[in-house]
Amino acid sequence: MIPPAHLDALLEFLRFPSISTDSSHRADMHACAGWLAARLRTAGLEAVIRPTEGHPVIVAKNARREGRPTVLIYGHYDVQPVDPLNLWIHPPFEPHIENGIIFARGATDNKGQILAHVLGVAETLAEQGELPVNLTFLIEGEEEIGSTHLEAFLIEHRQELACDIAAVSDTGMLGRGIPTCTYGLRGIACAELLVHGPAQDLHSGIYGGAVANPATAVARLVHSLHDEDGHVAVPGFYDRVRPLEAWEREAWENLPYGDSDILELTGVPELFGEQGFGSLERIWARPTAEVNGIGGGYQGEGSKTVIPSTSMAKLSFRLVPDQDPADTLELVRLHLESQCPPGIRITFRAGHSGRPYLMDPNSPYGRAAATALESTFGRSPCFIREGGSIPIIRTIRDVLGADTLMLGLALPDCRAHSPNENFPLENFEAGIRLNRHLLAALAEPG
Amino acid sequence: MIPPAHLDALLEFLRFPSISTDSSHRADMHACAGWLAARLRTAGLEAVIRPTEGHPVIVAKNARREGRPTVLIYGHYDVQPVDPLNLWIHPPFEPHIENGIIFARGATDNKGQILAHVLGVAETLAEQGELPVNLTFLIEGEEEIGSTHLEAFLIEHRQELACDIAAVSDTGMLGRGIPTCTYGLRGIACAELLVHGPAQDLHSGIYGGAVANPATAVARLVHSLHDEDGHVAVPGFYDRVRPLEAWEREAWENLPYGDSDILELTGVPELFGEQGFGSLERIWARPTAEVNGIGGGYQGEGSKTVIPSTSMAKLSFRLVPDQDPADTLELVRLHLESQCPPGIRITFRAGHSGRPYLMDPNSPYGRAAATALESTFGRSPCFIREGGSIPIIRTIRDVLGADTLMLGLALPDCRAHSPNENFPLENFEAGIRLNRHLLAALAEPG
Repeated sequence: MIPPAHLDALLEFLRFPSISTDSSHRADMHACAGWLAARLRTAGLEAVIRPTEGHPVIVAKNARREGRPTVLIYGHYDVQPVDPLNLWIHPPFEPHIENGIIFARGATDNKGQILAHVLGVAETLAEQGELPVNLTFLIEGEEEIGSTHLEAFLIEHRQELACDIAAVSDTGMLGRGIPTCTYGLRGIACAELLVHGPAQDLHSGIYGGAVANPATAVARLVHSLHDEDGHVAVPGFYDRVRPLEAWEREAWENLPYGDSDILELTGVPELFGEQGFGSLERIWARPTAEVNGIGGGYQGEGSKTVIPSTSMAKLSFRLVPDQDPADTLELVRLHLESQCPPGIRITFRAGHSGRPYLMDPNSPYGRAAATALESTFGRSPCFIREGGSIPIIRTIRDVLGADTLMLGLALPDCRAHSPNENFPLENFEAGIRLNRHLLAALAEPG
Repeated sequence: MIPPAHLDALLEFLRFPSISTDSSHRADMHACAGWLAARLRTAGLEAVIRPTEGHPVIVAKNARREGRPTVLIYGHYDVQPVDPLNLWIHPPFEPHIENGIIFARGATDNKGQILAHVLGVAETLAEQGELPVNLTFLIEGEEEIGSTHLEAFLIEHRQELACDIAAVSDTGMLGRGIPTCTYGLRGIACAELLVHGPAQDLHSGIYGGAVANPATAVARLVHSLHDEDGHVAVPGFYDRVRPLEAWEREAWENLPYGDSDILELTGVPELFGEQGFGSLERIWARPTAEVNGIGGGYQGEGSKTVIPSTSMAKLSFRLVPDQDPADTLELVRLHLESQCPPGIRITFRAGHSGRPYLMDPNSPYGRAAATALESTFGRSPCFIREGGSIPIIRTIRDVLGADTLMLGLALPDCRAHSPNENFPLENFEAGIRLNRHLLAALAEPG
């Protein structure tokens, strides 16, 4: 059973509409950060809210003691936007509990998971007055927009944030009760393509036939990103992709997760992806070119016979070792410019990005993480990569020199980034216990 | 000079937000129809508002007398939607006059033009107590949505609406002070393409690579509508297209309107269209496939890394003699289904449509129209086709057996269907005079 005070804390946290990408929620971001810092202080840590050029970062610590490892727990208090709002059964910032599952934006990603760590620490400190490690919480407000200012923050505060190992619960479990350790993540590179044609929307009768249509052009440009077999058709895109290792391919074949799960979770009529690869390899170890949004012209009720003046596409590329985001976006830009049809001009704007990450799950801290997961769930964990991107994990290695243990509690049907995001209370409770096992195991790695 | 009462009438008419495609404006449609019927009665006609299954139709008449031709003047009181609203310099339903030009949605299309006819009749009746012809006004509220219910209305009221010739001012002039008679129009066939993929928006990291993306798919489907040379790539699309006649090609070469005008009016970097045809032929005598809107996924500020559940495109096809709208949409449907990629389902919804129209400008009534235009503007008119569609004009011929004289007053830069639609007051005044010359000329066609 979860103590009522813990559940109240989760409900309070979830009620903040802390949408980092939308500037109209700036005040909500500050309010949410303030609430979380107060919670960390109540738990018994020293907590400070540090400004950045974007949303603030929270840093909280216990007293340092010599002779024990320093652990950095990373998480984020910002959430994804909520549209399409009409598909939510309950309002996204009014948490609703049904059959032991809590529904709200941020329930899984990442408020439920990071709060479990905070409450685990609070329990240990309340019972023992001390933690087995030197602990630092680093909780940011820009994860959903690419951790824009966190790299500079890490560089500026590298002494204060120095650590031996980092841990994060912002990844997935393969299924209910299946402990899962993630040792690799894809990187990401986002961009926006703007397509310009006539100076204003035109009557499609008066001019149709004699001028290029930006909505047709954006379709052509987006279409040019792939070939018929699902390969990305940008020249040079795959040049630096590192192939999957033999042990990984073998381990993945035996995982309790595969095509039938993906079919059920997504509701697609059939799976489709790059020819020549299985689904897990496509998601975890192959790069993609996705269109996250496309738009132009009239999208309302009925019809409006215009040639739109502009159109656009929001693009993101998931990257794998050893692809580089900036190099990839440059290849894409050159490709799109080469494909730009007559009568059209394009603008290509690079967005946020992050490099891919890979660690060795058989390292001493990796084995300690496996021990903690086994103690929490009563069975040995699965080792996987993930298709999502947590760019800061690569940055933590590059700036602080520490690997990150990814001990996620997100279920495959958690609907992160989608309407009706949810988190089972049993995972919230497991997260609290996991924190206690983890800090104990990391105190004596090996 | 325009009498102040005439200008007040125009301002009142333009203030009604009579957007027929948007059901939230239904009350505005009724209010606008009521206002117009009252105006027609004030002019001295008997006017009735007749309901349809959609927006009401207004019919107004003078007393019938034997031995003179019956003329039907057709127009519409509905207007196009106004978005993107932020591009309007003044609010679209708050008419603004600057340098002798009135800016408002509907200023040219069609409120300014039809009201000029009403006021011309009012002047003649006020001065002479009688018109030289039997006159019927037929003013509908669904032109911008394809005159959905007007064909049934014409069939039901064919006796009441019987006429020898129809006239309409809803077409263009080639330039300021250049009288223009339009003898051909393109038809239209509208459709909506809906693209379905996952059951809900998906996290593009967690699933990206293993499922088809509906935003990518809509791009592929839209792209498949054309080849690289701007030809429509739907099999069979051009089978029934009638070639341009030699006299038309010759006449069009000498018109005071061409590529440089189109470049200036549209602001495109360069013209583009079907290879092998000039701009006027592309617009007036060749069919097109246009994307009026495309949409899917996240289009707001910043980024949202989703694979959208659905996407859509609003399509319209401009048709020329002897293409048929229903046959054309069936060809398009078959083509799109043949192009549907794996992992995607599509829905194709036919929208409104209208057949193309062509008349002989050298007929007796055609010559009478030319006389009226010459009397109004002091120079002989140009004879052109137009790229737009007024489906009801074909229906008037099919149901009532009468041709329609198209004596438009819309300038090339009137921005019909676009932000900042406008109409010069000199054209409003010319329209009032044109009505008087036209009724006189039609009384004795030659």
